[in-house]
Amino acid sequence: MARIPVAVVGATGLAGQQFLAALENHPTFDLQVVAASSRSAGKRYRDAIKDERGSSQWFASQRVPEAYADLVVQDGSKLDPTSVGLVFSAVDGDTARILEAEYARTTPVVSTASAYRYEEDVPLLIPPVNAEHARLIETQQQRRGWKGFVAPIPNCTTTGLAVTLAPLVEQFGVDMVLMTSMQAVSGAGRSPGVIALDVVDNVIPYIPKEEEKVQVETRKILGGLAGAGITPHQMAVSCTCTRVAVLDAHTESVFVKLAKNASPAEVAQAMREWRGAEVARDLPSAPARWIEVSDDPFRPQPRLDREAGGGMVTTVGRVREEAALGGAKYVLVSHNTKMGAARGAILVAETLHAQGYIR
Amino acid sequence: MARIPVAVVGATGLAGQQFLAALENHPTFDLQVVAASSRSAGKRYRDAIKDERGSSQWFASQRVPEAYADLVVQDGSKLDPTSVGLVFSAVDGDTARILEAEYARTTPVVSTASAYRYEEDVPLLIPPVNAEHARLIETQQQRRGWKGFVAPIPNCTTTGLAVTLAPLVEQFGVDMVLMTSMQAVSGAGRSPGVIALDVVDNVIPYIPKEEEKVQVETRKILGGLAGAGITPHQMAVSCTCTRVAVLDAHTESVFVKLAKNASPAEVAQAMREWRGAEVARDLPSAPARWIEVSDDPFRPQPRLDREAGGGMVTTVGRVREEAALGGAKYVLVSHNTKMGAARGAILVAETLHAQGYIR
Amino acid sequence: MARIPVAVVGATGLAGQQFLAALENHPTFDLQVVAASSRSAGKRYRDAIKDERGSSQWFASQRVPEAYADLVVQDGSKLDPTSVGLVFSAVDGDTARILEAEYARTTPVVSTASAYRYEEDVPLLIPPVNAEHARLIETQQQRRGWKGFVAPIPNCTTTGLAVTLAPLVEQFGVDMVLMTSMQAVSGAGRSPGVIALDVVDNVIPYIPKEEEKVQVETRKILGGLAGAGITPHQMAVSCTCTRVAVLDAHTESVFVKLAKNASPAEVAQAMREWRGAEVARDLPSAPARWIEVSDDPFRPQPRLDREAGGGMVTTVGRVREEAALGGAKYVLVSHNTKMGAARGAILVAETLHAQGYIR
Amino acid sequence: MARIPVAVVGATGLAGQQFLAALENHPTFDLQVVAASSRSAGKRYRDAIKDERGSSQWFASQRVPEAYADLVVQDGSKLDPTSVGLVFSAVDGDTARILEAEYARTTPVVSTASAYRYEEDVPLLIPPVNAEHARLIETQQQRRGWKGFVAPIPNCTTTGLAVTLAPLVEQFGVDMVLMTSMQAVSGAGRSPGVIALDVVDNVIPYIPKEEEKVQVETRKILGGLAGAGITPHQMAVSCTCTRVAVLDAHTESVFVKLAKNASPAEVAQAMREWRGAEVARDLPSAPARWIEVSDDPFRPQPRLDREAGGGMVTTVGRVREEAALGGAKYVLVSHNTKMGAARGAILVAETLHAQGYIR
Repeated sequence: MARIPVAVVGATGLAGQQFLAALENHPTFDLQVVAASSRSAGKRYRDAIKDERGSSQWFASQRVPEAYADLVVQDGSKLDPTSVGLVFSAVDGDTARILEAEYARTTPVVSTASAYRYEEDVPLLIPPVNAEHARLIETQQQRRGWKGFVAPIPNCTTTGLAVTLAPLVEQFGVDMVLMTSMQAVSGAGRSPGVIALDVVDNVIPYIPKEEEKVQVETRKILGGLAGAGITPHQMAVSCTCTRVAVLDAHTESVFVKLAKNASPAEVAQAMREWRGAEVARDLPSAPARWIEVSDDPFRPQPRLDREAGGGMVTTVGRVREEAALGGAKYVLVSHNTKMGAARGAILVAETLHAQGYIR
Repeated sequence: MARIPVAVVGATGLAGQQFLAALENHPTFDLQVVAASSRSAGKRYRDAIKDERGSSQWFASQRVPEAYADLVVQDGSKLDPTSVGLVFSAVDGDTARILEAEYARTTPVVSTASAYRYEEDVPLLIPPVNAEHARLIETQQQRRGWKGFVAPIPNCTTTGLAVTLAPLVEQFGVDMVLMTSMQAVSGAGRSPGVIALDVVDNVIPYIPKEEEKVQVETRKILGGLAGAGITPHQMAVSCTCTRVAVLDAHTESVFVKLAKNASPAEVAQAMREWRGAEVARDLPSAPARWIEVSDDPFRPQPRLDREAGGGMVTTVGRVREEAALGGAKYVLVSHNTKMGAARGAILVAETLHAQGYIR
Repeated sequence: MARIPVAVVGATGLAGQQFLAALENHPTFDLQVVAASSRSAGKRYRDAIKDERGSSQWFASQRVPEAYADLVVQDGSKLDPTSVGLVFSAVDGDTARILEAEYARTTPVVSTASAYRYEEDVPLLIPPVNAEHARLIETQQQRRGWKGFVAPIPNCTTTGLAVTLAPLVEQFGVDMVLMTSMQAVSGAGRSPGVIALDVVDNVIPYIPKEEEKVQVETRKILGGLAGAGITPHQMAVSCTCTRVAVLDAHTESVFVKLAKNASPAEVAQAMREWRGAEVARDLPSAPARWIEVSDDPFRPQPRLDREAGGGMVTTVGRVREEAALGGAKYVLVSHNTKMGAARGAILVAETLHAQGYIR
Repeated sequence: MARIPVAVVGATGLAGQQFLAALENHPTFDLQVVAASSRSAGKRYRDAIKDERGSSQWFASQRVPEAYADLVVQDGSKLDPTSVGLVFSAVDGDTARILEAEYARTTPVVSTASAYRYEEDVPLLIPPVNAEHARLIETQQQRRGWKGFVAPIPNCTTTGLAVTLAPLVEQFGVDMVLMTSMQAVSGAGRSPGVIALDVVDNVIPYIPKEEEKVQVETRKILGGLAGAGITPHQMAVSCTCTRVAVLDAHTESVFVKLAKNASPAEVAQAMREWRGAEVARDLPSAPARWIEVSDDPFRPQPRLDREAGGGMVTTVGRVREEAALGGAKYVLVSHNTKMGAARGAILVAETLHAQGYIR
């Protein structure tokens, strides 16, 4: 079967690079177009990612895929979205708002940007958790008169939290979540990113807007489809988000108040056995299971566990009783630039393809 | 007035070195005796801290105080405690249990070890918080027939938490605390300490026994004197303790359920205005205030704030409403090897001296 | 063709683990025996690598190969070497001296230990550089009456230096080398390894015995076979070896005095085109080329380049004229636990197999 | 005696902050004016150093000096230099070229910028090394018709090298220097600075323009006054400059070819005993000695040695014979933002004051 031609917009940035790395040899999607700002337009991709000093700013751990290195970068603002069947958007917030609406008039857009995440008719998809929210796309298309649509993924800090809460919501009910994150510097990208002077031998106790995102997104993702929108889950979500000297993967310390009694063993089992939405199970980017629970008290660790399942697995450990709240506490590690960004967006596209929203 | 002659036992280790650094030119205490294991006994101090390769293992940021560098190290197990008026103990748990009881038969002992922290007749002192617990020393002496006593300080992770909870307990009442720590590697000492392979580009989500200590100690410190013991405070305390690539100072993300409504501004004000027990206020090691509250959302940071007040101030920031629990959330930084160890122990000794328990 | 059964001795340590990771699915060698100290003997491998706290001390980036996880660990001192066709030794210096001689009486031993590196009748092999030195094995067997032999690989800091010097020696002649290394913490292993307190926000300017090893080994490796021994190369080698907060891969800043004039472009070309000994070219562990030379002035970087060619490529950059000495200067990155340890030892075994010394 | 009123231009940047920290309570200079770009002009200093998020960007280890926090920042391009007796310039290269010439028409300027370092009539001062070069100021004033002058300090990487070479030049003669630096991230400032993604678990093998600066400056500083200019020292200087994950202080591995035989002990003694130019000895910023030589083979280390002598001492260790070149090799640590920047500039000003060039 012919693969679907796709474009990556914002292809030269850190998130865009992750798309290229993840799309190499993809069985369903055929990357044919790379686009970025007008500054990069007209250059070959391998040159567009060099800085003014001639130094390659490619940062994925594998090398630049040879198949894409010589693609000529297009100007994202002049892209003809009908030349492809799907656009992956990795542009920044402001530009995203304009460009993604433009593309969506004719073409599906799966995005890592936050621009449309909080719109009523826009699903916020983590396929194993809430694939059925994809139905909102129909509302979105009717309301906006679009042939395409915008499907954003959540903030990378939300992802691991929502994935691990999903089986708890299903089995025990969740009333309250209190979370402290220790986030990787790659989440801040490269310009300006987090400077070494700020984070070596240090912890930065604040990431602007991050806590609000996690709090709103978690409830939306775990909420229920109701008519033409989503009713957020009732749980209270409260966070403190910090930055630590870790390159990739966010670590989160989670305290959960459950609606129903559950022992740590039952909580661990619920996570281990959780298979999530059926449509998301056997997709190219899906790992064997979504959550791995470790019995080793010294796990999860971001450096040792972030690559589990190609960076698509959320690793959980230290599952203990939370007697004060009535529930459980645990630590999770989730790869912020894989499951939490480009590869997570590709998983969304695979799901939407399986559901018929992308053809 | 003549200064009180003191000994430091365990003087060659990381904690012992901090005692030497802090006792230089102390107005009340005159360090005359340094003791360590039999392996070091008989060597000059400057030689005893060299490893088998001849490399000085001195790690305080200031140089070895010249006044102490030529002291001959005594064998701690043969020390005559009556030769001094006070012993500071920085030995490890097992040895502490034996040696401290030995010394206490005749001489006051202030200790950073955990050996006696959980005994019914032993106070666990943070002077501004619970100086009045010192009265337990009388019970301890009667019950055990000691002329001296053992007064341990709490675990370094407990200290900042208890200090910041104290004004909240006083003003609003505290029902529950959920805390996630990001702890410095110096807390693990040097042998074996935390190896770089484990903590560079990483977070270690577990520190054995640490969470239990914080949970028990916080309630004891904030509890009330009742007859011949302490009634622990009723608050529920739950923690997850992690290790990050920070050299000194523990960062803690705290969620508190208060008994009484209080706005973030009121919580911040309560902390800022808190002066603590009067007896501890004007001591040589006491800073101008015990808690500094920053309005800068990017503070506190361990590297920038750990030295506040000579490492004796707990810095708080990000004070926000905690709507889910009903209370407040905040982040604190506390210096684990200063207020949380040697300098904190010296502050205890200064307090006990002011109270007449050490003369 | 049947694969050759092999044992890994010292299998539970950091170097041993790298052997297991690298031998999974190896086309020539079939790992059948894992051995370690008597303390681990009798346990399944997956249990033997747990510490006393139950925490897995497995540190290779891939997971423990399933095929080996249930192997029962043997006591290395009681191993019957005739049960396998080859022993890989990853034990420490003192034990290595005894055990390797024991095994070599009957069986080939390829070792990462330094015990036999400096013996006259022992080759020190980097296959592309000096595969012909393998002929010394015949002298070794005759002189010692062994049926097997010991073939050690060099120190991990020597490897990248010798690889990059080889084409320069061949094309221009080398008179003098002055090298400063910035070495990874994994080179020090785990017990005690490098503690975080020593290396975070720091550089350690000394690694005991390292400089002497590099100086002697480089000249031996690049020397010529002469009768029953090797005549060291005449070049002068001088080093300063330092430790930095890098997890894997050594970076070396090299200044070379060449015997013959050569421009930076000629030096780069000599390295790029160098194919090394023919026998080593198409082996399972051999990369497409041994040296990659980057034109990007910001390369090589250990984190970005260490995995080139599966960790078997030495990456060179910043090739410039060295006018003061008359020659060239450059920076190299070499993976210390891959090309510089287990995978390098496997490459030696593959070469010796191709040469008929291992069957 | 009345103190000399001084201005700091570029006062809000990282280098400017170091000036404020170092000038607090200075016996000779009285900081009265702080100036920066027009963007900061009109704000109080404490507000001018906040970023757009309201977060203080003050990074010196001590707090903002209270005496300066409420000074109103002036626009550097509109500053009246005659309002002070001396301007310290911490502005960037391009602006420095224009502003410093403007100020120098009437007023002495001591600068950390590179703009005038390589002009024939401009001395490049490290007071203990070449205080007598200050005489060039007279040539500069005559030739340019200035009443003031510009006196820049060298690049921070040059400083430690030149200081340690000075006694070797004096006692043994130096023919050649080959140096590899491992530099701190603070040297790159804050905008953009070095991002954590680039330097955590990494080494960056290139710092643009750095090597050229060190090579030219070292020879100029160690050269001799000849008529109206300086004859650079004849020694060959060759460097490779790298960046490592260290916050402050540059580490340099140095290989020196001496003109005359000298044992390591003689080299160490020459450095230890070196007192430098007499005029620079008893100045407020001068440490007891300029060079400390450690016998501990694990020293110097940037984290442990950078604060020696208030950051003004260059610490040397690992002094060994360099047989290949004929000379010595050693490692040095020099504080790049103290002796190598603001405090080094203040030392220059103190010297010029002692010499009568600043009154």
